[in-house]
Amino acid sequence: MLAPTPQGVTPERRAVQFKLANGMEAVVIPDHRAPVVTHMVWYRVGAADGPSHRSGLAHFLEHLMFKSTEKIADGAFPKIVMELGGQLNAFTSQDVTVYHERIAREHLGEMMAMEADRMVNLRLTDEEVATERNVIIEERASRYDNSPNARLSEQMSAALYIAHPYRLPVIGWAHDIAQLSREDALAFYKRYYAPNNAILVVAGDVTPDEVRDLAVARYGKIPANPAVASRDRAKEPPHEVARRITLQDKRVANATLQRTYLTPSYATAEPGTAEALSVLMTIIGDGSTGRLYRRLVLEDKLAASAGAGYYGGGFDSGIIHMQAVALPHRDLGSLEAAVDAVLDEVRENGVSELELNRAKRSLRAAYTFESDEQERLAERYGRAQSVGRTIDEIEGWPAAISQVTTDDVKAAANTYLDMRRSVTGHLLPEITNGRSAQPRQVPAP
Amino acid sequence: MLAPTPQGVTPERRAVQFKLANGMEAVVIPDHRAPVVTHMVWYRVGAADGPSHRSGLAHFLEHLMFKSTEKIADGAFPKIVMELGGQLNAFTSQDVTVYHERIAREHLGEMMAMEADRMVNLRLTDEEVATERNVIIEERASRYDNSPNARLSEQMSAALYIAHPYRLPVIGWAHDIAQLSREDALAFYKRYYAPNNAILVVAGDVTPDEVRDLAVARYGKIPANPAVASRDRAKEPPHEVARRITLQDKRVANATLQRTYLTPSYATAEPGTAEALSVLMTIIGDGSTGRLYRRLVLEDKLAASAGAGYYGGGFDSGIIHMQAVALPHRDLGSLEAAVDAVLDEVRENGVSELELNRAKRSLRAAYTFESDEQERLAERYGRAQSVGRTIDEIEGWPAAISQVTTDDVKAAANTYLDMRRSVTGHLLPEITNGRSAQPRQVPAP
Repeated sequence: MLAPTPQGVTPERRAVQFKLANGMEAVVIPDHRAPVVTHMVWYRVGAADGPSHRSGLAHFLEHLMFKSTEKIADGAFPKIVMELGGQLNAFTSQDVTVYHERIAREHLGEMMAMEADRMVNLRLTDEEVATERNVIIEERASRYDNSPNARLSEQMSAALYIAHPYRLPVIGWAHDIAQLSREDALAFYKRYYAPNNAILVVAGDVTPDEVRDLAVARYGKIPANPAVASRDRAKEPPHEVARRITLQDKRVANATLQRTYLTPSYATAEPGTAEALSVLMTIIGDGSTGRLYRRLVLEDKLAASAGAGYYGGGFDSGIIHMQAVALPHRDLGSLEAAVDAVLDEVRENGVSELELNRAKRSLRAAYTFESDEQERLAERYGRAQSVGRTIDEIEGWPAAISQVTTDDVKAAANTYLDMRRSVTGHLLPEITNGRSAQPRQVPAP
Repeated sequence: MLAPTPQGVTPERRAVQFKLANGMEAVVIPDHRAPVVTHMVWYRVGAADGPSHRSGLAHFLEHLMFKSTEKIADGAFPKIVMELGGQLNAFTSQDVTVYHERIAREHLGEMMAMEADRMVNLRLTDEEVATERNVIIEERASRYDNSPNARLSEQMSAALYIAHPYRLPVIGWAHDIAQLSREDALAFYKRYYAPNNAILVVAGDVTPDEVRDLAVARYGKIPANPAVASRDRAKEPPHEVARRITLQDKRVANATLQRTYLTPSYATAEPGTAEALSVLMTIIGDGSTGRLYRRLVLEDKLAASAGAGYYGGGFDSGIIHMQAVALPHRDLGSLEAAVDAVLDEVRENGVSELELNRAKRSLRAAYTFESDEQERLAERYGRAQSVGRTIDEIEGWPAAISQVTTDDVKAAANTYLDMRRSVTGHLLPEITNGRSAQPRQVPAP
């Protein structure tokens, strides 16, 4: 049996980081179980960095990055990776845009050469832009406009943030997507795609020295872009009002309740606060052992499913989210009362040592499982580094979770499960158009 | 007895407009009842044109415009106007920033010289900027933060607009005001304050030729600024969800209900639509003859006051607003049900010819009374011209109102009194902090 890691002691570092002369940062996470590598480039730019009247621009550019450069023809990038036996993908979030490949170790240099090439040599024709714009318009229609739950989530974000650009959807509003131009994309590309705004993450069967040599040769020759400036996003004013939205959609089979609360993130919170929120929301919302599931699904038989969680990865803020799907003939008012009773109970009486320890074990176990999947491992470092967290903070997370106390959890509940920070969303099947299908205030008993 | 003006016939024009070679527009409205003039400069820039992470910038600059130029010392501008027996003021809205003086006719040339001077020669010291920033911080604290109703209104706007900058308060969020700098103000000034972004409005005891000669001499020598670009603000996505907010404030004496709906404005609506909205909301909400007042105050005895209106002056959109203050021991749920019953009735059965004609008479009378007040008369032209409306549209408004039919009113009610366009706000006295003091959904009967 292994001795437990003493609390508060940071374990020996696994990842190695360095910086190129042009400002590009790099993290290497050795993983020698198989002769493969995960190669990622994280740009410190996401949907929330675009101009607010051009929502969707960061995601649009992500699509266009698979168009041509002088060396690589339109559509050839994925073909080359796949012919080498690799896999590739890309994604855009509010804070980052990420390109990654998983490939045999001997091709890492070639992947770097290709990513370095499209970091600065992207060419775009009006036709390529028009084609891709239509692809995204279709993507939006199928993934968002045709999904009542996605529509509600989009409106929940729009209602949660008063000033901050996190309120805008990453994919963009349909009317904004339709207006995105080649000039918009190139201006954004030239301002934000540069080695001094990028983080190279390589996990896999390589040594830090090997990665450094390859990176210097491929990425090192790109000059820094002095136009890259630090983020200057709109900040939220104090949240003073509880907000509610109701979406009616005839395609809804089961009425659904969502709730979100604005919180700090790991990048913005005082030490220990985000960790307490992680533990708190594991106890309240994680799977079938969470309090919400036990109360709404098992005990009260109101909901088909119920869960909650805390996302603490944001650059400017974090979020608590909850969701419950009503059983037929159960109304959302009853669901919401049951949710509030669960939250009231935690605020008033806190959580037990048993729950605390179970939640900590569960979180540490998730960290361990994640460490076994190379791509998720690489993503962990990229995500945290791109919002300014250090290797020590990333690797010290299990130890920091271990330090959370029941008092910390109760304090976090009382500070952050505050309706003034919240949006409550009701998704209902019936359509009543102009009529007020809103909940009425019930007079106090 | 006078014959009524035939419907649809535009009366003879009262105002005369012309344009200077540098792009500055001018409107002159002769009014020879007294030897005074109202002199206004309308800049086509307002709070909604500033960068979204610098809310309050347009209003901040309005304050700073009373600081020094080379010719006029800090604070001397108001003193000069007052020593000449004049009055002066300035205001900032979402769409415009306006400076105006009312003064004896012989001083008009001097007023123009002073306005022309500060259009381009403003000097700002860091000390002046710091002083004025503190003035505005105090202004915000006293007018907004200390007023529960103003706080609710501010949050109603934040909740109504998803993407458009009308969601931000004209005065700015406190944390943004605290960051506004001399550089922010000067950059905004240099981009937007220019003759080709301004409208001169002069009403009073002058002829158009006199005004033209004075304007050419004073404003005509300022070169046009090619940096002035047309507005490119974020546009609203379709509004799909009804929104609700609850603000609790212990200083609230009587619970208050507010509701707003997003609508077109006179500048954006199809012909006749904004006029129908004006008539509709006069019937529903105007004073003690409006349907809301009759139902909530007189019949049901739920409210101490109740009213509603339509503001159609915006560049990008209009708004319907309603407010009702509960009598003691009356809850907002009952008030809201009564409001919805009034709106349902109009949507289903429309309005009577009697109500229609009374509302038209009332609107035309308001236009006539406004024409008798020189400052409001001048403001009418400035406001409409600054959002792109023509003299014919301004002066043809009473005739356009006359053409509204009961069918138009019913159609407007059905299209625009749609909960998906709305925000409902509850202002409540009690404080329950973290607890959910939200209305519960009442199961359908």
